[in-house]
Amino acid sequence: MTDTVVSSATKEVVIGFNRPFVMIGERINPTGRRLLAEEMRDGDFSRVEADALAQTTAGAHMLDVNAGIPLADEPALLAQAVKLVQSVTDVPLSIDSSIVEALEAGIAVYEGKPLINSVTGEEEVLERVLPLVARHGAAVVAISNDETGISEDPDVRFEVARKIVNRAADHGIPACDVVVDPLVMPIGAMGTAGRQVFQLVRRLSAELGVNTTCGASNVSFGLPARHMITGTFLSMAMGAGLTSAIMNPMHPEVKNAVMAADVLAGNDRDCAAWIAEHRDPETVGLRRRGGRRRSA
Amino acid sequence: MTDTVVSSATKEVVIGFNRPFVMIGERINPTGRRLLAEEMRDGDFSRVEADALAQTTAGAHMLDVNAGIPLADEPALLAQAVKLVQSVTDVPLSIDSSIVEALEAGIAVYEGKPLINSVTGEEEVLERVLPLVARHGAAVVAISNDETGISEDPDVRFEVARKIVNRAADHGIPACDVVVDPLVMPIGAMGTAGRQVFQLVRRLSAELGVNTTCGASNVSFGLPARHMITGTFLSMAMGAGLTSAIMNPMHPEVKNAVMAADVLAGNDRDCAAWIAEHRDPETVGLRRRGGRRRSA
Repeated sequence: MTDTVVSSATKEVVIGFNRPFVMIGERINPTGRRLLAEEMRDGDFSRVEADALAQTTAGAHMLDVNAGIPLADEPALLAQAVKLVQSVTDVPLSIDSSIVEALEAGIAVYEGKPLINSVTGEEEVLERVLPLVARHGAAVVAISNDETGISEDPDVRFEVARKIVNRAADHGIPACDVVVDPLVMPIGAMGTAGRQVFQLVRRLSAELGVNTTCGASNVSFGLPARHMITGTFLSMAMGAGLTSAIMNPMHPEVKNAVMAADVLAGNDRDCAAWIAEHRDPETVGLRRRGGRRRSA
Repeated sequence: MTDTVVSSATKEVVIGFNRPFVMIGERINPTGRRLLAEEMRDGDFSRVEADALAQTTAGAHMLDVNAGIPLADEPALLAQAVKLVQSVTDVPLSIDSSIVEALEAGIAVYEGKPLINSVTGEEEVLERVLPLVARHGAAVVAISNDETGISEDPDVRFEVARKIVNRAADHGIPACDVVVDPLVMPIGAMGTAGRQVFQLVRRLSAELGVNTTCGASNVSFGLPARHMITGTFLSMAMGAGLTSAIMNPMHPEVKNAVMAADVLAGNDRDCAAWIAEHRDPETVGLRRRGGRRRSA
């Protein structure tokens, strides 16, 4: 099946079916983070650096980088953030902006093959973003909405995704470099939000054979114990065919659900990653102490 | 879609699609519980009573009752256990034995419409269990193995399930009273165990339209942090169409995964059950104290 290959200067990551799920850290995003927004606007990127390190330590395979701050020079900030993050981590990045000039600035300084986040099915966006993606040989996130907005009908969203994949082909971008985002709504506001995504992801993987991603945290917005909802959502979406997500790997409920789903999908061979993550440190400690005692 | 209705003397439970998942408590089973086995053999059913109460308090909608103790009078023990459990709880029961005489003894004392656990695709078992189910107007768990054993091919297991459903019809048992168990193997021993179940459950619900159940805990046998694996397995199986499971509702990781999957499948209207379960008791407490302070 389809493999989407992205890279940094030194590291390649493959998003694909029958492979471990790709966790893309969501934290470097000033939306809703007033302090981070203020610091970035003032040129203080220390929190960006800390977030990059914390997320990769927690297991993020890629990092999303967004610098969407109102009234700020987003292209300059995004370029600066991309350079900084690439200087402290080796994971490939998702360069995230709704402003084409910011995407251009981020790509210009990026080392490797990035994921461009994102293009929509809107005519003007398609014709501005896809040439950029093609010119840089990048991969791109395709969000399944268009001029008419976000349909609640998964079949309409499927057709938008198909249109983007076809248009990408016109620009010389292969389907393996298009990662479709089915758009995740808060389940607390729309009870069908989960089913819509599962159905759409199933069609996208079965019929278009494309990889998929989504902003997972949105699903649990406003609910108590929300990280359990997000984790369970991800495992169910993985069962339907989801191959990556923009998410927070620092929440154990979320990360554990993804890792367990990899086990259950047969993508964690011999459960090796699960066992390494969950081998009880206390038991290991006791065994070690026992060993020492015997040898004394 | 199909509704499987079971009942106690006073309470009805419906297993069905687009409904909250039915959790069947697994604990009243002496297999692998030496102490419980010894006590039951000696006529001490205090632990059975405690397990019944603990599981229903934890949210079990039904309870499985098994008295499979080697060299014991299983029919008498199962009847005694069924009577006792029905005297302390009002949830419908799954009467669980591989010995037909024990099933008969359990049904004889049961008040309501039980779930009989189980019939297999083996010719002799079919012709002994199905008449019993038909005579009592019960529902039955159909395990998808036959004389040839348990196939690793989900399509073979599907055909066994179809055979049982057809044979049940010959005995006047409608498909809505057959709940198919796809058989869950330990994922630590067989990396395809999860996928097999998901694929089989998908076919069983889409093509046969039957309800499904399974012994969920088996999937995580031998793994660390196993309850997270069991919970994630259940949520993924629910995404594929699983409508009930024999499981332990006293493990929060398992119960929360089921409740979250109900939210995400759109079967917990307005997330009411989730919010009631997870409303932070501390926050509620603070709010109450605040209210008193204001009124003072």
